[in-house]
Amino acid sequence: MKITIAVDIMGGDNPASELALGAVSAARMFAADGLELILVATPEAAKTLPELPANVSVRTAEGVVEMTDDPGIVMKDKKDSTLVLACNLCKEGIADAVVSAGNTGALFTAASLIIRRIKGVRRAALGSVIPLESPFVLLDCGANLDATPEVLLLYAKMGAIYAENVLGVENPRVALLNNGTESHKGTPLYSEAYKLLSAEESLNFVGNCEGKAVPFGACDVLVCDGFTGNIALKLIEGMGKFMSKSIKDIFHATTVAKAAGAMTFRHTKKLKKKLDPAEYGGAPFLGLKKPVIKAHGSSDAHSFFSAIKQALMYCQGGTIEKITEGLAKKTEETEE
Amino acid sequence: MKITIAVDIMGGDNPASELALGAVSAARMFAADGLELILVATPEAAKTLPELPANVSVRTAEGVVEMTDDPGIVMKDKKDSTLVLACNLCKEGIADAVVSAGNTGALFTAASLIIRRIKGVRRAALGSVIPLESPFVLLDCGANLDATPEVLLLYAKMGAIYAENVLGVENPRVALLNNGTESHKGTPLYSEAYKLLSAEESLNFVGNCEGKAVPFGACDVLVCDGFTGNIALKLIEGMGKFMSKSIKDIFHATTVAKAAGAMTFRHTKKLKKKLDPAEYGGAPFLGLKKPVIKAHGSSDAHSFFSAIKQALMYCQGGTIEKITEGLAKKTEETEE
Repeated sequence: MKITIAVDIMGGDNPASELALGAVSAARMFAADGLELILVATPEAAKTLPELPANVSVRTAEGVVEMTDDPGIVMKDKKDSTLVLACNLCKEGIADAVVSAGNTGALFTAASLIIRRIKGVRRAALGSVIPLESPFVLLDCGANLDATPEVLLLYAKMGAIYAENVLGVENPRVALLNNGTESHKGTPLYSEAYKLLSAEESLNFVGNCEGKAVPFGACDVLVCDGFTGNIALKLIEGMGKFMSKSIKDIFHATTVAKAAGAMTFRHTKKLKKKLDPAEYGGAPFLGLKKPVIKAHGSSDAHSFFSAIKQALMYCQGGTIEKITEGLAKKTEETEE
Repeated sequence: MKITIAVDIMGGDNPASELALGAVSAARMFAADGLELILVATPEAAKTLPELPANVSVRTAEGVVEMTDDPGIVMKDKKDSTLVLACNLCKEGIADAVVSAGNTGALFTAASLIIRRIKGVRRAALGSVIPLESPFVLLDCGANLDATPEVLLLYAKMGAIYAENVLGVENPRVALLNNGTESHKGTPLYSEAYKLLSAEESLNFVGNCEGKAVPFGACDVLVCDGFTGNIALKLIEGMGKFMSKSIKDIFHATTVAKAAGAMTFRHTKKLKKKLDPAEYGGAPFLGLKKPVIKAHGSSDAHSFFSAIKQALMYCQGGTIEKITEGLAKKTEETEE
């Protein structure tokens, strides 16, 4: 089966040529799986690309959405941008999925308006796969700042389907991020959501999860509103960076410490991977009609490669179909 | 000047005798500062105490508030408990401050009802001093789950006074915990609070702070609602534990790694301190008429010592007076 992914190589912190390297690696690695890539670049950037394998083509657009652009203006002022073109390729059926390292809000806005939400999905969410002790999907990481109990239930279902199909977790454990483990804990949003998630038989709901349990593999899907999720995601990222820096400082403190650093190099490298969300390549939008993966803004070739791999698995897993069939209908019933 | 602190040595995870050790150390260390301690224990626990210095006395109550007790029942069913007695000693003017390692919610409820809030302070908050790159006060850590923009402003003022008087930070930098740095970011609660904090001349408001900047000394006072703050505090704690465990694992992986661990022991120990909120001993309640410090539930003698030291500094700093004089009046004007 052929799977075509539109890859926006502009708009990240690194130059298009760096991201193209990751894309080409992915194209070569997964050629046998039927992967085809359409790199979307400006005409100038397109000239800097290396020789491309047969399953990689290039499309161009004049504009680039900058990190600082207000997402609200993208569909007006940046219609002729690589990001919007990548979404349009998906809408027109030329591509099956989109990957971009650009402006998160702009990607969400463009993808929501162009690719559109699955029928019955009131809110699409931004998930993030976080490694730590064992990888889990955190959602919503900021697509929508507010939520209702029904929306948290929707996130839970979409997250569980994603964890099962893309991360390969059987019967994923779903938890609510909360300020205590008891069922009545949290704001009314969370205590009400607790009731809905408990009552939903299709979910393996394991209850509330406190922040201190998060790093230790307490669940496979961690559900919260976008404000809380964004703060949690960035705190985890910040603490990971703090830790990596602190370890580096330890191993640079003295000559003896430098030797110790060399002695444990492989182990600390492994730990660094556990602390780095870029290891999983990107954050999936859930609830849209096609897979859209937001690669980390600071993606290098390696993490951009991972993001494309994740998009491929998102396509292969039948995740969209499962969300569309199972959940969309159910959500409509609940809400309308 | 004599300063008397009522110390509830029951209700923590460790036995009263362990906490008493920390209390006795503090009493000896700060005898010259006029510190006097009243240890509050059950009659049974009182019998297990070692010989006490002259500036330590003992009072007893029959009951103990357990960690699992619902805070709502404390003032009904546990009136004759060590926690309630400690608060009563404060109310009656026998003690100047309270320290307890017991049930946080129960301590907050009892202290709010017995010691009461400063006039004009609509909500008392639970602060927490977090070490990391440079120590900062995070508040509210869960005393109240919801907030208004005015309440966040109140937290900001109280937190700044605490940071200045107890942590010794001159002109403390105050920030809002938010999902982006721009002024319009966050839920309406946060974008409105941003306006109030910017307009408040007595504050050194440095804007919004994202989770990824939190560990790196971005501010001295970090303000948020109690739900978000509790999740953030526990995430920081959990990530700290995850890292300590990971470093331990690295240094136990092989014989070579064990040698490396020995070579960097002092440095990793220093890092562990940075990751451990117990290092600062306890979490201050802010907005009550007397200093109340919640020591960590898992406090050992060392961290309980630090909590008592913090209570002493809370008393010495004139923090309560400054909150009462400056801010309480202002808050009344705004709200009534």
